[in-house]
Amino acid sequence: MTFGDALTAATKAKSPVCVGLDPNTDKLPEGISQDAAGVLEFCKGIIDAVKDIACCVKPQMAYYEVLGWEGMKVFWEVCAYAKENDLIVIADGKRNDVGSTCEAYADAYLNELSPIDALTVSPYLGSDGINPFIERCEQNNKGIFVLVKTSNPSSGELQDLPCGDEVVHEHMAQIIESIAAQHIGPKSGLSSIGAVVGATYPEELKYLRTLMPHVPFLIPGYGAQGGSAQDIVGGFIPDGTGAVVNSSRGIIFASSGKNWKEAARGAAESMKMDLGEAIGSNS
Amino acid sequence: MTFGDALTAATKAKSPVCVGLDPNTDKLPEGISQDAAGVLEFCKGIIDAVKDIACCVKPQMAYYEVLGWEGMKVFWEVCAYAKENDLIVIADGKRNDVGSTCEAYADAYLNELSPIDALTVSPYLGSDGINPFIERCEQNNKGIFVLVKTSNPSSGELQDLPCGDEVVHEHMAQIIESIAAQHIGPKSGLSSIGAVVGATYPEELKYLRTLMPHVPFLIPGYGAQGGSAQDIVGGFIPDGTGAVVNSSRGIIFASSGKNWKEAARGAAESMKMDLGEAIGSNS
Repeated sequence: MTFGDALTAATKAKSPVCVGLDPNTDKLPEGISQDAAGVLEFCKGIIDAVKDIACCVKPQMAYYEVLGWEGMKVFWEVCAYAKENDLIVIADGKRNDVGSTCEAYADAYLNELSPIDALTVSPYLGSDGINPFIERCEQNNKGIFVLVKTSNPSSGELQDLPCGDEVVHEHMAQIIESIAAQHIGPKSGLSSIGAVVGATYPEELKYLRTLMPHVPFLIPGYGAQGGSAQDIVGGFIPDGTGAVVNSSRGIIFASSGKNWKEAARGAAESMKMDLGEAIGSNS
Repeated sequence: MTFGDALTAATKAKSPVCVGLDPNTDKLPEGISQDAAGVLEFCKGIIDAVKDIACCVKPQMAYYEVLGWEGMKVFWEVCAYAKENDLIVIADGKRNDVGSTCEAYADAYLNELSPIDALTVSPYLGSDGINPFIERCEQNNKGIFVLVKTSNPSSGELQDLPCGDEVVHEHMAQIIESIAAQHIGPKSGLSSIGAVVGATYPEELKYLRTLMPHVPFLIPGYGAQGGSAQDIVGGFIPDGTGAVVNSSRGIIFASSGKNWKEAARGAAESMKMDLGEAIGSNS
């Protein structure tokens, strides 16, 4: 069983909703302290609110790192709490390095006992920066999501550079697919090697799905960043699996008042319905 | 005064030697415990041994992160100790993200009170992933080193892709120079925006120096990775400044015995002489 199998099962059981745990202390709701303790309370509250709706959570490491080592302590506590509550945990760290340093990152986040199921990885260094992660994915049933076409406005500066008949992100997609095809899960046909492809570029998303048939997609950019449910349908495979869609602010900061948990739950439910309708009408 | 000015002054006062603090616990010398406490003792010992030879140290964050939050606590203690000992501190985290998440990384490592002087940054996301760091560099006299052409064997898979008349890393170099040229230090003519260019590709290093005249270089790959002093001379500007050269294993693990501090000091001294001769004969 690969990480792709586990992600597919969770998507079918709950939804393709991924809740981004980006606890910016400036935005924490009423009654939550703007420190590491507040971040822990807030993230646990969000997990409680969405755990039967979302298939996974994606803690964004920067918001924990900015609180120093106390923030990293909370990061691990949040990951463990999410895992205890049957959520798949994707650590969004966009880590990247080579050789023994890359092995250290893999050991840090994808070791056998880690509550983290998958890590996001940045690909500028080439396969030296990806292969050590894949070894740990194989050994420990973990996954990675490699940045391919990101959702931000300037993503094209490097990712859309034309290289011969293709652009950089197409080339990257072919490298990822060639690796993924060697590590296919028996249940889903999907690998442990995923790709990050933004909702804000729907044409590229649709085309990249055809280039990477064995690659689970993590799709950021839905909601606050402007991507709609119709924009993301091209990222799924025909049976409505193969991708998870992330929303951070739109869910976790749905209300800054005392009803923040209920508001987050409501926003996650709305997103689940919105995605379900779009994917259903597409399949 | 920019980070480029500070780096140039330190290079002139001591040497262009940068000591990579990569405390792989499997390799710690005799008598040092293989845990966070051991890492702190080891890094402090190395700092004591090299502080009047090297201009800077480069803690590689993966080796601290792999020890959990206790490792991150030690990471900050190591950075503070290096700063107290008049070393420039380059945190090698290759962080990358966009928008408010990128701001959180910048606040985490380049805030006004941070003992860290500069952070390495990975550029796959384009300028959205660089500009928030530059704001903090300006405000707080900090720096960044953006990956351009890295020292690892597979760096060419993405970085050497041909795009029209140039390759990806040349294109990236031009983007970095265009930003750097707007933020030039009055003393050195160098910006706060640096580039990582590997010693293992000497022709590219020489050419990239001409493409990025206002950009300080962080040059990995000397020593254990195969780069020689002659390989790195092209990365300096004619007065023998403009770059720092990193060695990690070759210095910190020069001996696994009880003489590890003396061995590290000896290796740093040899590197300083080796670089000095090569740069001197070149200028």
